[in-house]
Amino acid sequence: MFPVVPGHEILGRVSRVGAKVTRFKAGDLAAVGCMVDACRTCNHCARGLEQFCTNGVTFTYNSPDKHMGGMTFGGYSEKVVVDEAFTLKVPTNLDPAKAAPLLCAGITPWSPLRKWGAGPGKKVGIVGLGGLGHMGVKFARALGAHTVLFTTSASKAADGLRLGAHEVVLSTDAAAMAKHACSLDLIVDTVSADHALDPYMALLKLDATMVMVGAPPKPQQISSFSLFMPRRILTGSLIGGVAETQEMLDFCGKHDITCDIELIRIDQINQAYERMLKSDVKYRFVIDMASLRQ
Amino acid sequence: MFPVVPGHEILGRVSRVGAKVTRFKAGDLAAVGCMVDACRTCNHCARGLEQFCTNGVTFTYNSPDKHMGGMTFGGYSEKVVVDEAFTLKVPTNLDPAKAAPLLCAGITPWSPLRKWGAGPGKKVGIVGLGGLGHMGVKFARALGAHTVLFTTSASKAADGLRLGAHEVVLSTDAAAMAKHACSLDLIVDTVSADHALDPYMALLKLDATMVMVGAPPKPQQISSFSLFMPRRILTGSLIGGVAETQEMLDFCGKHDITCDIELIRIDQINQAYERMLKSDVKYRFVIDMASLRQ
Repeated sequence: MFPVVPGHEILGRVSRVGAKVTRFKAGDLAAVGCMVDACRTCNHCARGLEQFCTNGVTFTYNSPDKHMGGMTFGGYSEKVVVDEAFTLKVPTNLDPAKAAPLLCAGITPWSPLRKWGAGPGKKVGIVGLGGLGHMGVKFARALGAHTVLFTTSASKAADGLRLGAHEVVLSTDAAAMAKHACSLDLIVDTVSADHALDPYMALLKLDATMVMVGAPPKPQQISSFSLFMPRRILTGSLIGGVAETQEMLDFCGKHDITCDIELIRIDQINQAYERMLKSDVKYRFVIDMASLRQ
Repeated sequence: MFPVVPGHEILGRVSRVGAKVTRFKAGDLAAVGCMVDACRTCNHCARGLEQFCTNGVTFTYNSPDKHMGGMTFGGYSEKVVVDEAFTLKVPTNLDPAKAAPLLCAGITPWSPLRKWGAGPGKKVGIVGLGGLGHMGVKFARALGAHTVLFTTSASKAADGLRLGAHEVVLSTDAAAMAKHACSLDLIVDTVSADHALDPYMALLKLDATMVMVGAPPKPQQISSFSLFMPRRILTGSLIGGVAETQEMLDFCGKHDITCDIELIRIDQINQAYERMLKSDVKYRFVIDMASLRQ
């Protein structure tokens, strides 16, 4: 619905708070992710999974605005007004610009890594090294898992190791892939282009899980044999709930984890968009919104 | 590898036992399923999942025979010789002919129904009403689940209800399918032909599971949105381990559950095979092996 103001990885200082706000005060560092409201009462909200609210999430932009009418506007703005229940605390030791993409590129791999038990003694694969994948690698490593990056780009191997991967496997190298057959406890697949799932499913142990967090526009193919020779799980994950997002931010504060970004002025967004289409970004563009007033 | 003697749903009387056999004696009713051996020491065997033995299962027919050389021969025989560790006890109240297909058509839906918690308070779907599906319906009902049969054949509705389904849904009826959207806790998909998975995934609740037990020859399509809008699981299942198969047989004895079959003589197998190809069987042909000697 036009006009649209996008932006769902928002970080800034609180300028003012409402009379009933208790968790924030003016001057605090605060963040807003993909959602600004949900019903807060359905059984999914009750489980802290507001992103699956059965009565419908109010997304940060381009959702019907229940309070103001019209549509919600996102973070490409001078300011946003958000209920404190959907506002996150940001650890003060983090660089605000580098922390902003945690609100989507961070929580998206974080949620399945936590749900499916990434940690010490586990071998975890991350497929794809983009905005989501580079955070998947950092998180899997920081959670204590043996971390393997799968990429189609030999040029990304060095960066994969720098970001924390113990191993980098070129997924086009069948022999290299075969060495990991039936050995992974968890794979988080961040690829949003068409790609074959069966070669990654073959890397999973019995009862291990592959989680799709990318959204290829078309359906992907899966062989039933990938699902039962041996028995394995294919699932998906969509951002994360509010409490889980706060948990992720707190973890980042404790472990000093942020995103690798390139800070741009708002008048550079068209060039940035063109570069993003060519995958020429390591690994997220962040807009300095102060540039809107300059 | 020819010559082949198939047959992996075997039931009969013990004629003789070896000197160290303790669980069976001559005259006992005994059964053999898809497997006659496995390594018994790998971590999958140790978990009772011999069907996923990492050192290789010895299947009941057409597997290399470790003891005798050559290949194993299955149940289309006057007799089989099987290690007692892979031989099942059969409850004596069951009709032997009707119990035989439990060894594959029974254990195949039983295993995922148990693993994924089919029982009271759960809504369980069975997709397809063939040999596996008709047992899926009986088991889901007997386990206490609200049982819904999904079929493409309106002509199977009455039989679905007779077999125990609380509801039968024609999967080609989009409006009927829509009524079950996001409501099922578990679906066991027994279809082995090409079919769309997304319409069934859409019936699952958050974090609910669809299990493929059929083996379509080609890969099937799955949309990532089916996996994360909301979060859902797609997995598979392959027969079951020895202990789990015994559990299923004991359950059948307690609840007086057997398969719906048509008993044939061995000289009728070619006609039976032709009828099976046309789905003209309710729901399993069983060969009376006494007919081999007549």
